Amino acid sequence: MKKQFTVAVVGATGLVGKTMLKVLFERRFPLLDLVLFATENGVTETPFGTKEVHELNQANIYRYPCDIALFATSGEVSIKFAQIFSTIGAIVIDNSSAWRLDDNVPLVIPEVNPSAAFMHSGIIANPNCTTVQILTAIAPIYRRFGISRMVVSTYQSVSGAGASALGDLENGTTSVFDVPIKNNVLPKIDVYQSNGYTGEEMKIVNETHKILSPAIKVNATCVRVPVSNCHGATVNFELIKEAGLNEIGECLAESPSVKLSDIPTPYDVTGHDEVYVGRLRRDESNPNTFCIWTVADNLRKGAATNAVQIAELFA
Amino acid sequence: MKKQFTVAVVGATGLVGKTMLKVLFERRFPLLDLVLFATENGVTETPFGTKEVHELNQANIYRYPCDIALFATSGEVSIKFAQIFSTIGAIVIDNSSAWRLDDNVPLVIPEVNPSAAFMHSGIIANPNCTTVQILTAIAPIYRRFGISRMVVSTYQSVSGAGASALGDLENGTTSVFDVPIKNNVLPKIDVYQSNGYTGEEMKIVNETHKILSPAIKVNATCVRVPVSNCHGATVNFELIKEAGLNEIGECLAESPSVKLSDIPTPYDVTGHDEVYVGRLRRDESNPNTFCIWTVADNLRKGAATNAVQIAELFA
Repeated sequence: MKKQFTVAVVGATGLVGKTMLKVLFERRFPLLDLVLFATENGVTETPFGTKEVHELNQANIYRYPCDIALFATSGEVSIKFAQIFSTIGAIVIDNSSAWRLDDNVPLVIPEVNPSAAFMHSGIIANPNCTTVQILTAIAPIYRRFGISRMVVSTYQSVSGAGASALGDLENGTTSVFDVPIKNNVLPKIDVYQSNGYTGEEMKIVNETHKILSPAIKVNATCVRVPVSNCHGATVNFELIKEAGLNEIGECLAESPSVKLSDIPTPYDVTGHDEVYVGRLRRDESNPNTFCIWTVADNLRKGAATNAVQIAELFA
Repeated sequence: MKKQFTVAVVGATGLVGKTMLKVLFERRFPLLDLVLFATENGVTETPFGTKEVHELNQANIYRYPCDIALFATSGEVSIKFAQIFSTIGAIVIDNSSAWRLDDNVPLVIPEVNPSAAFMHSGIIANPNCTTVQILTAIAPIYRRFGISRMVVSTYQSVSGAGASALGDLENGTTSVFDVPIKNNVLPKIDVYQSNGYTGEEMKIVNETHKILSPAIKVNATCVRVPVSNCHGATVNFELIKEAGLNEIGECLAESPSVKLSDIPTPYDVTGHDEVYVGRLRRDESNPNTFCIWTVADNLRKGAATNAVQIAELFA
């Protein structure tokens, strides 16, 4: 197996793409070379110095070949270009929702289902930011006690909607959202599905079913809050086997990517790679049911860090 | 029965007290006279013109007698002074949490349990802002189908923590909160109880039990979001009798204080007296379970409007 890899970051000038470059640098990913793709040719500052950015097109994909392509683009761009990277033998790790539910595409959280990554046919999908966050926290509990049902409410930051959305948060404008996000809370993320749920809500349902088990009942309400970075989520979960509060705490404390904290907030968690879990308590109203509050940096563990961790599985 | 009432507003210079004055004015409450009390003597602008404010003390309570006293003070102040108003024959309608769980004090939402108000022994309690909002929405459904369980997550605005807290939101300071609320989300409101829940969370549990039924299983997580006014809440609720989505919608539509809307937000709802309900859908993962998103102006229906509506029951 190779010891060093040429990594392409596709969408290198967006919020997630930039964070991927930061995370590759911080984690000392074994890079042979770095190739940056975006909509237009140009140059960009990275932790590795000033780098050339190539227009994303078939000719450039062949001209600047890579071993691993980290995609931080829209689903449309991913559908158009991911398979071209496959034809040159690169592994695509895609952050969009385009491939996540494809039977031939593993959907991977390295702490949860690392072995799935090796079943790929060229493309590996990064789960949705909220799914990564919730399942990283919940999986150790699921493995030990089984989970029959989860009720989730999210408190999602504006960086998850991209750089222009952050401008809306700053200025009170509505370039990305229908109503202002500044000083407001928007209980709809992504478009409606036929069942009245939003795309974002169904991602949590469907991706939990694919990564952990289709037997888990999942209900989610996804809400955007006027915070620049880090998603929060409340999770009320019912276990299959009996458990004590201490045992749940142990499960969480033993998980290397989880940090137990009393009241983690976006302010404290931004810039960190772990999923923070707080407010652990028993739901006294229902048997064998517990509640947690989780916070994670959606640009990092929710996107860039998880993608780089998947790449590290091959390094 | 009297046709006009002398009303005292106690805590008349705070956010809720000012809103009480606004609501008394807007709803043309049959006022004979208005008496304002606060910590210090002074004058204040009201919709009724410039008014004298009297220092809250026993002598002044006797000097400026009233028929109804609307309390918008801390629990400590309410405990100290509410019963003095009772001794002069006034009905106290108290917005603090001091008396809510007292067996001799009715806890009233006029749309939900108006008759309870007439069982008072001098003091009537206004429920917590989140309880008012959730139960105003849920009660019509409860009456028709029964509710066995609710899981609640709140998105509470900063005005609920008073005027200094609004300064913290504006300036990024921490005069009221331990960590900044500006650009942040705080998953702890009020102090911890021995069971790991906060006071705010247990208010929703205990007040739902007192107002609707102790048989309803209630679980809540209360979270402060960086929004100046209007609380949001997600409610996942399980019914006892089978119901269709349309029937739930009908229950809500028939309720005079509920406005059905697709995606109500604090931005739209601020200044309104109704409880807005949106995102109504079936929880497809669990039998006979539904989800809603509610928004209400916490200073109005969550506090001042509900208190004035209780007073109107006597008018």
